[in-house]
Amino acid sequence: MNEAGKVDGMRSGVTVPEGFKAAGVCCGIKEGETRDLALVYSEQEAGAAATYTTNLFRAAPLQLTEEHLRDGRLQAIVCNSGNANACTGARGLEDARRMAEEVAQALGIRREDVAVASTGVIGHYLPMDKVTGGIREAVAQLSPQGGKGAAEAILTTDTRTKEVSLKGSGYSLGGMAKGSGMIAPRMATMLAFITTDARVETQVLRRCLVEAVDCTFNQITVDGCTSTNDMVVIMANGVSSVEPDEGELGRLLTELCGELAAIIVRDGEGATRFVEVKVTRAASWEEARYAAKAVANSPLVKAAFFGGDPNWGRIMAALGSSGVRLIPEQVSLKINGALLAERGSPHEDVEEFMDVLSLGKEILVEVDLGLGEGEARVWTTDLSEEYVRINAHYRT
Amino acid sequence: MNEAGKVDGMRSGVTVPEGFKAAGVCCGIKEGETRDLALVYSEQEAGAAATYTTNLFRAAPLQLTEEHLRDGRLQAIVCNSGNANACTGARGLEDARRMAEEVAQALGIRREDVAVASTGVIGHYLPMDKVTGGIREAVAQLSPQGGKGAAEAILTTDTRTKEVSLKGSGYSLGGMAKGSGMIAPRMATMLAFITTDARVETQVLRRCLVEAVDCTFNQITVDGCTSTNDMVVIMANGVSSVEPDEGELGRLLTELCGELAAIIVRDGEGATRFVEVKVTRAASWEEARYAAKAVANSPLVKAAFFGGDPNWGRIMAALGSSGVRLIPEQVSLKINGALLAERGSPHEDVEEFMDVLSLGKEILVEVDLGLGEGEARVWTTDLSEEYVRINAHYRT
Repeated sequence: MNEAGKVDGMRSGVTVPEGFKAAGVCCGIKEGETRDLALVYSEQEAGAAATYTTNLFRAAPLQLTEEHLRDGRLQAIVCNSGNANACTGARGLEDARRMAEEVAQALGIRREDVAVASTGVIGHYLPMDKVTGGIREAVAQLSPQGGKGAAEAILTTDTRTKEVSLKGSGYSLGGMAKGSGMIAPRMATMLAFITTDARVETQVLRRCLVEAVDCTFNQITVDGCTSTNDMVVIMANGVSSVEPDEGELGRLLTELCGELAAIIVRDGEGATRFVEVKVTRAASWEEARYAAKAVANSPLVKAAFFGGDPNWGRIMAALGSSGVRLIPEQVSLKINGALLAERGSPHEDVEEFMDVLSLGKEILVEVDLGLGEGEARVWTTDLSEEYVRINAHYRT
Repeated sequence: MNEAGKVDGMRSGVTVPEGFKAAGVCCGIKEGETRDLALVYSEQEAGAAATYTTNLFRAAPLQLTEEHLRDGRLQAIVCNSGNANACTGARGLEDARRMAEEVAQALGIRREDVAVASTGVIGHYLPMDKVTGGIREAVAQLSPQGGKGAAEAILTTDTRTKEVSLKGSGYSLGGMAKGSGMIAPRMATMLAFITTDARVETQVLRRCLVEAVDCTFNQITVDGCTSTNDMVVIMANGVSSVEPDEGELGRLLTELCGELAAIIVRDGEGATRFVEVKVTRAASWEEARYAAKAVANSPLVKAAFFGGDPNWGRIMAALGSSGVRLIPEQVSLKINGALLAERGSPHEDVEEFMDVLSLGKEILVEVDLGLGEGEARVWTTDLSEEYVRINAHYRT
């Protein structure tokens, strides 16, 4: 990966592509001196596309953003952290609308060209005086060096900013994401904002985004909980005047989303290990994915990994109750390359393996269902006591 | 509940009904001086029925028990703890068969009249010399006072024995169960063994058992993980000569299973609180059940409860991604009687409620989907750091 952001020390993530500015300010939604409002601005109106959570309690800002994106155009994205503005009914939708209007007014752009996102606690109304004050401050601070500040301002329980940028043939892509818990994006994803100075037709942009999201963000899970606020938005402002080859753009976008998704998993709440679950020879691709997620979401499997225990029986139990087709006598299983179970039974040297197999920070689980052609990979974390601590005390 | 076992201090659980003996011995599968092999014996051949896990990696002893139960008759149940004899292939089935044969030989009964159960670590072969030694010892120790010892011998991470007994009109029912983690019985249940001295036709016994299990054991969850070894077995030996009314028997059996199920949840791994999730007005009964389980299995909801936080937004998020039909604007939610969300939005006094709502050891979540007639209740625990500790270090 070509980390374009590193070339220019001051520009990173979403402000690496030409013609984008950003800012992250502290408006007081969160306690203390923490940035909690981000703004990304394109000097020119940009082609845009987005994917949204499939959670039926889709948050107000997502409803508004979908409405604003009907014409495939955007010029700014505003995102607050500390409050999800979800399950807030008509008043929540009104608040999201006001955020877009404040941004549009301060920047002198159309309010339909503003996407709105929120992340944080569900079920509380936004403190709108703080939010509008923050928007005015963010507009004043917009700069090509503001990517890092914006990336900070969208975080909640995250312990690090999540930025990636890539160079294409004459254009760049930049992105930032947040996410640490309530991570199980499904037909959608976590909050991520992507920019490019390429000139891309809206249909192409949409197609490339959906494909990239489906094999990256949609394949990670921290706790099996799908958020009300997941969204990925991409803006292509065409400032480079380059119309990229769709194949190259698709590959780069998938690489960028994959990098951001991996950073999210590595920063999963309380995570001490990074786990890849690969399922092969399932009856179908959907079943491979489902089986891999069943393993990746099993608290018993995850707790065993936290303890450094290659407890393959728990993996078998998770597969067997996942609902996917399988024949126990055809299932084989490897952890970090060691064949622990062969065709449903312990490998003959399994006791020996178990003793020597010390699990490091990276764990690869390979399940061979021995049935069909279906294959899928899912990335997840272990389950630590810290995850429980964080989520027992996050809100208060 | 009439705790028949308390009337006669020496008889408890499965040995409360007339004509049953039991024993629990220490045969060395587990380390230390812990009982790990239980035997339940009926002096007369008994009518019998069972339900089994739906996990496709159904353990060897369950396969054998199903085979032996084809004629609806049993006279003994043998159960070891410390090793699940699951994912052990042909050798595992052979070991289960040998357990039944050893019991049959030592008791002078048909081997097809012996049910076999195992619980513990998945994926290891049984130490058969220890097991056969234990069987001989258990046969020698069988007594009407052996219920308690047997109830001890089937435990794994449980912290207490789980016994219940009830009196019907001229007959008794007794039962014991184990279970603390990997608890999400589905169309099946945890290990539970039930006895009665009533005289009951096999068809009736089966019908009553399936109905009782479905609204009790199948409605509890600790961690959403469905075991490979779940099984409930009932034996009716007819020693009382009473042929009970099917309605009464069904009610008593449901009460007994409900009591055992509640004891399992209260002894859930690391549990500090007992949570009931009640979903009403779902589109169907199945959807009510599914929605209730989605809430009960959400690690975010459970961790919030552990922290004493009535974080209703996480409950909404769990409902919204559960796959059941709902309209956000029609969903209302109470915790311990306090209306926190009304028709998808925060109740007007919600901030006030949140401050005063301190969650005690018993939590009642009531979700009203406002759609149809579907209603279901699920019982679960909170998610504590102790759950992670137990499962990170259980095997080793």
